[in-house]
Amino acid sequence: MNHKRVGRQTVALEHPPSVAAFANIGGKFEGQGPLKDYFDELCDDAFFGEKTWEKAESTMQKRVLKRALERADLEPKDVDYILAGDLLNQCIGSSFSVREFGIPFYGLYGACSTMGESLSLAALLIDGGFADTVAAMTSSHFCTAERQYRMPVPYGSQRSPTAQWTATAAGCTILRSSGSGPYITHVTCGKVVDKGITDANNMGAAMAPAAYDTLSAFFQDTGTRPDEYDLILTGDLGELGHRIVLDLFAQQGVELGNRYQDCGMLLYDRERQDMHAGASGCGCSASVLNGYLLTQLRRGKWKRILFAPTGALLSPTSSFQGESIPGVCHALCFQA
Amino acid sequence: MNHKRVGRQTVALEHPPSVAAFANIGGKFEGQGPLKDYFDELCDDAFFGEKTWEKAESTMQKRVLKRALERADLEPKDVDYILAGDLLNQCIGSSFSVREFGIPFYGLYGACSTMGESLSLAALLIDGGFADTVAAMTSSHFCTAERQYRMPVPYGSQRSPTAQWTATAAGCTILRSSGSGPYITHVTCGKVVDKGITDANNMGAAMAPAAYDTLSAFFQDTGTRPDEYDLILTGDLGELGHRIVLDLFAQQGVELGNRYQDCGMLLYDRERQDMHAGASGCGCSASVLNGYLLTQLRRGKWKRILFAPTGALLSPTSSFQGESIPGVCHALCFQA
Repeated sequence: MNHKRVGRQTVALEHPPSVAAFANIGGKFEGQGPLKDYFDELCDDAFFGEKTWEKAESTMQKRVLKRALERADLEPKDVDYILAGDLLNQCIGSSFSVREFGIPFYGLYGACSTMGESLSLAALLIDGGFADTVAAMTSSHFCTAERQYRMPVPYGSQRSPTAQWTATAAGCTILRSSGSGPYITHVTCGKVVDKGITDANNMGAAMAPAAYDTLSAFFQDTGTRPDEYDLILTGDLGELGHRIVLDLFAQQGVELGNRYQDCGMLLYDRERQDMHAGASGCGCSASVLNGYLLTQLRRGKWKRILFAPTGALLSPTSSFQGESIPGVCHALCFQA
Repeated sequence: MNHKRVGRQTVALEHPPSVAAFANIGGKFEGQGPLKDYFDELCDDAFFGEKTWEKAESTMQKRVLKRALERADLEPKDVDYILAGDLLNQCIGSSFSVREFGIPFYGLYGACSTMGESLSLAALLIDGGFADTVAAMTSSHFCTAERQYRMPVPYGSQRSPTAQWTATAAGCTILRSSGSGPYITHVTCGKVVDKGITDANNMGAAMAPAAYDTLSAFFQDTGTRPDEYDLILTGDLGELGHRIVLDLFAQQGVELGNRYQDCGMLLYDRERQDMHAGASGCGCSASVLNGYLLTQLRRGKWKRILFAPTGALLSPTSSFQGESIPGVCHALCFQA
């Protein structure tokens, strides 16, 4: 067992990397939600000035990366690595967005856990002494996700009550080896967890066991309790998945209470906006982190939070072939 | 600039991780090629005993992972991380294969560069002190790739002379912090390079500039010359891409000569097997590395080789939308 590893899945960073800058972007509905004041840019045009939704998604990534670089007063050549991925087949949202920047690039696929995965590897690359500055980024787009995973948007399909709404949003964080924080102190890598859920319109239920698995591993590995964190936030489980995580912990005698929230329940107004079980998509946790969360951490609202985005590792093909939905969750501890 | 980084893109590992074990698997045509004796398992059935080709691809990954674990005398619980990805939409080849092992998992998307990307990050995680044992894995399958990228196999489409044949193969390497080698001494992370090629039936030409870019960065960063390596091997550029890389170096006055080869030209018999420009797919470089290359490195045929798999970061959607094909290449130096 290596000394930097505490337990099976967690690394305690020796020199916690610091958030140098962050940026996010959202679409029309994100701009009508309760977090609208925490977005750097909101665009009513689903095409973001491009000819296709896929190019729009790439453009969202380009804009958040540019903005984060400007804020950190960095040029692309100052960035040692960029780690990015998205939901599109072959992750074209990311490969086309980073193309013009000339930054060494490792592409990731973690479905909606990508903001957690990219930040985790970014923090490890810095703490390992391989990089001074690393960017982590992801995105999702309602229209590209509907076309790819469900039905073309113009069909106007009826959605089931457990369905979630893929966020049209992107987020980018730039980490550096030193700075004034917030800092990433711990990184917990998730295992693939599959409890046999097959309903692709109920992702929250499919991903909740992975969230429970990774959060439990985090608490066990670090020897801490949930009440030592000001906020515990999963990625996009939505209402149902959020309740399942509460239940799974309650079965172990642990009451998470109000300190446990979910990005998918924060992004939209659950009364005024008809988003059913809540938000989903890589862009959900990415835009909530790179706006509301990091801003409030800097302002001192919280001292220590646990950020745990979840991903459903299915594809339309795997569902057609009768497979259940594997989930994964990567967790990070941020300290002010 | 961090001391472990030499130049813009390369890390010189302080404690070069050692290959603990490796395994590969191939299909019918791989079993008829010149490297057939370097496969651990060859299966004439394209379904590998499963009901669908996608499940077959996952099964190939499961088998190479199991075999590599057995050879290293390890249980899944002894492995700190597994890094894997593949060409299938949402990388279901990997997420479904690792599901039953319970190993902390970071999913990657690097198209056919995935064996290079997974090994790079595995080596960095070990050298950074975050892990003792890491598995790196990828796969491809002719039938799943044809269905997804081109035409359903039963259509029997005519293939263009520049087209390559997606290998039905998988490979897994297990790296450890100590051992008797071969060792990974350097890791070079590629940038996305796009020279405007739009012909999805000519991947070699699309990826060759990325291979040239990363190999040039490697030589510049390390201050070495091509003739200091016994073998320089790109992933799956095929005949045309291989020739372009030779030409690009020749334009700079550097003759790579016979020491420069390509996995895509080694896997099949170019006279007897009608594979046009050669092999492609993540499984091509993965199976060539985890069979022929590592076996011969251990036997002493070569002392120092450069392994540089290339990936084409397109999707059918990006091609339909008129986009060109971005490429990426990640390089590793292996020493006996």
